Amino acid sequence: MSTFKQEPHKLLVIPGPIEVTDEVLYANAFPPLAHTSADFIPIFGDCIRMTRDVVFTSSGQPFLIAGSGTLGWDQVSANLVEPGESVLLLNSGYFGDSFADCLRAYGANVDEIRADFGKAVTQAELEQALQNKPYKLVAFTHVDTSTAVLSDAKMIGETVQRLSPKSLVILDGVCSVASEEIRMDAWGIDVIVSASQKGLGAPPGLSIVVASQKALKVLDNRITPVAAFYASWRRWLPIMKAYENGTPAYFATPPVNLIRAFHTSLTQITKANISLEERFQLHRDAAKRVRSAAADLGLKLVPVDPACTANGMTAIYLPEGLGVADLVPRLAKREVVITGGIHKENKDKYFRIGHMGVTVVQPERGDLDRVVAALKDSLQEALASKKNV
Amino acid sequence: MSTFKQEPHKLLVIPGPIEVTDEVLYANAFPPLAHTSADFIPIFGDCIRMTRDVVFTSSGQPFLIAGSGTLGWDQVSANLVEPGESVLLLNSGYFGDSFADCLRAYGANVDEIRADFGKAVTQAELEQALQNKPYKLVAFTHVDTSTAVLSDAKMIGETVQRLSPKSLVILDGVCSVASEEIRMDAWGIDVIVSASQKGLGAPPGLSIVVASQKALKVLDNRITPVAAFYASWRRWLPIMKAYENGTPAYFATPPVNLIRAFHTSLTQITKANISLEERFQLHRDAAKRVRSAAADLGLKLVPVDPACTANGMTAIYLPEGLGVADLVPRLAKREVVITGGIHKENKDKYFRIGHMGVTVVQPERGDLDRVVAALKDSLQEALASKKNV
Repeated sequence: MSTFKQEPHKLLVIPGPIEVTDEVLYANAFPPLAHTSADFIPIFGDCIRMTRDVVFTSSGQPFLIAGSGTLGWDQVSANLVEPGESVLLLNSGYFGDSFADCLRAYGANVDEIRADFGKAVTQAELEQALQNKPYKLVAFTHVDTSTAVLSDAKMIGETVQRLSPKSLVILDGVCSVASEEIRMDAWGIDVIVSASQKGLGAPPGLSIVVASQKALKVLDNRITPVAAFYASWRRWLPIMKAYENGTPAYFATPPVNLIRAFHTSLTQITKANISLEERFQLHRDAAKRVRSAAADLGLKLVPVDPACTANGMTAIYLPEGLGVADLVPRLAKREVVITGGIHKENKDKYFRIGHMGVTVVQPERGDLDRVVAALKDSLQEALASKKNV
Repeated sequence: MSTFKQEPHKLLVIPGPIEVTDEVLYANAFPPLAHTSADFIPIFGDCIRMTRDVVFTSSGQPFLIAGSGTLGWDQVSANLVEPGESVLLLNSGYFGDSFADCLRAYGANVDEIRADFGKAVTQAELEQALQNKPYKLVAFTHVDTSTAVLSDAKMIGETVQRLSPKSLVILDGVCSVASEEIRMDAWGIDVIVSASQKGLGAPPGLSIVVASQKALKVLDNRITPVAAFYASWRRWLPIMKAYENGTPAYFATPPVNLIRAFHTSLTQITKANISLEERFQLHRDAAKRVRSAAADLGLKLVPVDPACTANGMTAIYLPEGLGVADLVPRLAKREVVITGGIHKENKDKYFRIGHMGVTVVQPERGDLDRVVAALKDSLQEALASKKNV
């Protein structure tokens, strides 16, 4: 085994990419493998199997494809929607807006329920919409990275199953898979869209999607051709099945290094000494700690309801009179990388901290202590600088 | 600086992924950077600039997007073709077939000139097709990885400019960029589609496309919306311009580690002690060496015309009576990874060797000696095994 240690670096606590382990980075630096070789095939097959474990599905079909998380929206839009079909989108922020843009680019007729900034769509709003009109898909952002609002995936899955059982439930879990509990089968979720660089603990560059058999049946039954090539599940399904069964197949060259890094991270997540349940609890504990630090500093959270607040990241309002540029660079000077807002109208009013993966599950690293201390010092300095003017 | 050395491994001499340098792998193992940080922005900006240098363009617009090379076909198809428009595809193998499938998935009306196995489309065939019908795009695979046939990019660019100056010339350079000479501006090439894992010397996972200003004008003038979201240049163009100008912008999270690895490889390619011209010559020399080794063993090449034979890879017919399974595993036993055919009807009749990047430009590694020796020994052993039966 290697004694590889990653380079000293600023602590990366944005809501993705995140801090990753030495083992994951070392896997990313392994000499490239031939994508059809006996050395690579079981690595890819294991990734498919372990991805299922993370979201508690027995029959969901993972698609692991080189790309950003955004590519998952194209996969949903190109494979599951035919032009003119209706989609209900529960919009809780910037990423809801973008998902809607993507769906419309493929001809979907998108109805949105737009939650106010800092809020999630309520069960009553969802029920009303489902009673008014049939929808092919009901899509939502589990954690909208722009607001740290957590939608209630269980409630959404169950409500759709009760009132509109033919609809497919689409969960955008880019900022929630492996940091928030997701029970794909039990909650009736049909598609989970994710990416490698957040709770899943690898570098960015891998689009990770899991589709239920019900979703694949919808694909089978579509009348118009799939409206894409690279994002077409018809192209990828035989590839994923082949690799899982231990044989190679070719559609496009998989990102072999990143798949190996993802394999290492998935192994650390699913076969470690802490269970997935304990992992989720550690994320809840970390979120509580960051929220209480914000409260101690007199700062308010963007999410208005504690029950609808993410556990893998926190979005915090700046005090009156301070902008993002007053705070974020001061943390960077202290070697702690956080980030500003990205919600369109409010982006200079708040900042965001990520607390996922090793930062959370390896408390001996002291990451959260560093974040909280740097936040406190930076804030005091920023406020003092304003008084001096 | 690091003393990182990659793990001992089998010599990877398939036509991509290829052997990469320790420096490139170490960059891939750098702790992830925030994609909007001042640390990352110049790395991305440099990659855009150096990509231009490799293909000799001053005004071409690079797009560096997480994805496989295949995603470049979607970019061409979704941005530059409107449903029902005509594309002429010069088909010299498997990758021509797939590019045609992709164009058709986006509604293109594709006419193909299909070269026989081992041949490229001729100038006379191209001229005749261009005189018969106007085409929005003329697309070709520069090196078809399935056959090692090299198309004459300069001839194609000049012929289209002469007979059909409004057409856009699309070069699929996944298996040619940085191993074959490509003069984008001088030859009148409008789009180059490539990927990170072949001549460009990085791990797979990055779709690399360069579009001329003429191509971007065609995008501006399209009537129907761009038929994709993740592959939409309208989404990516402001991002690429922002990063090149030193400011962050967000559409989808870039694969920060792979971009850093690509930066390292591009630096080694464009700022090394050997020029690009010398690099191309070293690839020509390596190809000659492999071809002459094949001739010494009494083996015939798949490409029938030496002028239409790739310099970054070689496709060689197996002797009568031997299949891929008789040869490739014997080289693997000798720690040399080559691969079989993938051309649909002929895939068990030939094998392929890649000779790109460090394997070629660092002769002190002795890679080609190992390949030639392993090929000779494996072939003798395979032939002997048949006699014994």
